[in-house]
Amino acid sequence: MASRSADGPPQRLADVSEDELLALIFPHFAAAPKDPVGPGDDAAVVSTNGSVVVTTDAMVRGRDWKDTWSSPHDVAVKAVTQNAADIAAMGAVTRSLLVTLTADPATPVAWVLGFAQSLGEQAKTLGFSVAGGDLSSAPPEILVISVTALGDLGGRSPVRRSGARPGDTVAVAGSLGHSAAGFLVLESNAAFTSTAAVERAIAAQPDGIQARCLAHHLRPMAPLDQGPAAARAGATAMMDISDGLLRDGTRLAAASGVRLGLESAALAADVDELVALVGPDRAAECVLAGGEEHSLLATFPAAPPHGWRRVGTVGEGSGVTLDGVPQAPRGWDHFAGG
Amino acid sequence: MASRSADGPPQRLADVSEDELLALIFPHFAAAPKDPVGPGDDAAVVSTNGSVVVTTDAMVRGRDWKDTWSSPHDVAVKAVTQNAADIAAMGAVTRSLLVTLTADPATPVAWVLGFAQSLGEQAKTLGFSVAGGDLSSAPPEILVISVTALGDLGGRSPVRRSGARPGDTVAVAGSLGHSAAGFLVLESNAAFTSTAAVERAIAAQPDGIQARCLAHHLRPMAPLDQGPAAARAGATAMMDISDGLLRDGTRLAAASGVRLGLESAALAADVDELVALVGPDRAAECVLAGGEEHSLLATFPAAPPHGWRRVGTVGEGSGVTLDGVPQAPRGWDHFAGG
Repeated sequence: MASRSADGPPQRLADVSEDELLALIFPHFAAAPKDPVGPGDDAAVVSTNGSVVVTTDAMVRGRDWKDTWSSPHDVAVKAVTQNAADIAAMGAVTRSLLVTLTADPATPVAWVLGFAQSLGEQAKTLGFSVAGGDLSSAPPEILVISVTALGDLGGRSPVRRSGARPGDTVAVAGSLGHSAAGFLVLESNAAFTSTAAVERAIAAQPDGIQARCLAHHLRPMAPLDQGPAAARAGATAMMDISDGLLRDGTRLAAASGVRLGLESAALAADVDELVALVGPDRAAECVLAGGEEHSLLATFPAAPPHGWRRVGTVGEGSGVTLDGVPQAPRGWDHFAGG
Repeated sequence: MASRSADGPPQRLADVSEDELLALIFPHFAAAPKDPVGPGDDAAVVSTNGSVVVTTDAMVRGRDWKDTWSSPHDVAVKAVTQNAADIAAMGAVTRSLLVTLTADPATPVAWVLGFAQSLGEQAKTLGFSVAGGDLSSAPPEILVISVTALGDLGGRSPVRRSGARPGDTVAVAGSLGHSAAGFLVLESNAAFTSTAAVERAIAAQPDGIQARCLAHHLRPMAPLDQGPAAARAGATAMMDISDGLLRDGTRLAAASGVRLGLESAALAADVDELVALVGPDRAAECVLAGGEEHSLLATFPAAPPHGWRRVGTVGEGSGVTLDGVPQAPRGWDHFAGG
């Protein structure tokens, strides 16, 4: 990678032409063998089977990640996961990604190439292509990444937010509160002054709850296979938990015209796991209101399939209750920050 | 529209919740009747016929538009055109758009709703849906819009950049240099201190070359129908002119392994039209190197179809020549700004 000139400071985007930069990036973005046209043309062409599931999500440096804690690799994994989880939440399989990078021209070329390489590796591991993208210059300090994901339903109907019915089982696939707990640990520990310091803490006890929460906050993995699995098992409604169980649960409840009745006993193991890390009050808050988890929330007419665990029951009414007590839809709001 | 509170200053994004804002935006983004799922779920579902053409492009306030000159309507039209032109350049018809808005929380709600309304109207006029989007908060002063467009080839093969062959005719559909000339007029006229001042100048002589160039810079329209028409007529290569005829022509020549031989006589009418507005030297430079035009450049094995005009011939070699003289691929570079 031409990330550093032989006799000077690291190269910045402003030091290379757009065509030179694209020539360095595209090798990381091989089209899937099935795709007729990959990156490098005006548009890409992706094979589908009659309909395409599509979602888009933006990430902003300083808001969605901090360079102090997150490497380009972490940012790429997070960008992939938050979009692929939206595709999975419809019951679909991600087929292809597109990415726009809007960057301060002083951004190091090495950052962009590291991001592109990790995005390509992540896509290859998960079985989809990076079909294209766009580069734009931004004001000083700004770095915005916008990803669009395309998915395939494999002939199934999409699972929407609106199909939950009273009597359905409420279930979750994946962790709860790990991203929020990881963020609390990062924020409260003055030793985390660099990505290297964070990685040392993770490597010291990689299977411990602290390491798992830190890693999940920085580079979350979602139970992507459980989306199509839930669809095959007859899920009536589904969404990914990006803004917190209560806030997203309230959205699902509103779309379906029902009440989601959560049970604290069913969430106790999730809370207990975090108590040693952040204390009992914050552990419960992480599980109920922690965002950016990208686990899946769904409702089923019967017992949930393998890989899912029951957390409550759908009832008549509206909103979300915990042991029958109505819960405010607190959680992450992008503009109010509340 | 809840763009102004009854007794206070204009509402900002920070004054409304994300869910309230989405409830104001979504009515402008009706799904196409054919689409199984529109905006408001984790992802949208768009009907296709076996493959989907997809492209993405970002716009940054202060770089891609200035609020002094551009209304939210202008920005919406520009965002639609630059993406739909990429789809047209593959020979496809745009079916659906997604948009991410990454905005300073101090951004007026009225700006966002005006943008959303115009995006929805533009999509309706052109026959495609706005299938979804994403809202994120950004640092102060920042507003980034990223649009993804999905298109349909109608069973045809995509027209790539790589198919031009020596002997083909080089042709253009749409104007040349109007956006660049419009920008020169805006930059050089101290009276253009507001969108209202610019619109008065346009309205004073709406069919004049100044008005047409100003309007094309602020809210460009592309000859979208000519993309599929060129594909049906057997175009061997095609792209949209977003970074200038010379720079984009050099890209097409490189992808095809040929030389594009432009002829000044064939471009004389385009240059002449701009001379009164910007002078002879800058008129020629606008036509050859002006970006953001979103007209279409294509090569044909025979005479181009109706709606296209011949501007040269494909030859052996590389790069772009004008009357046989090699031309540097000057034009807009996103990071170098050269």
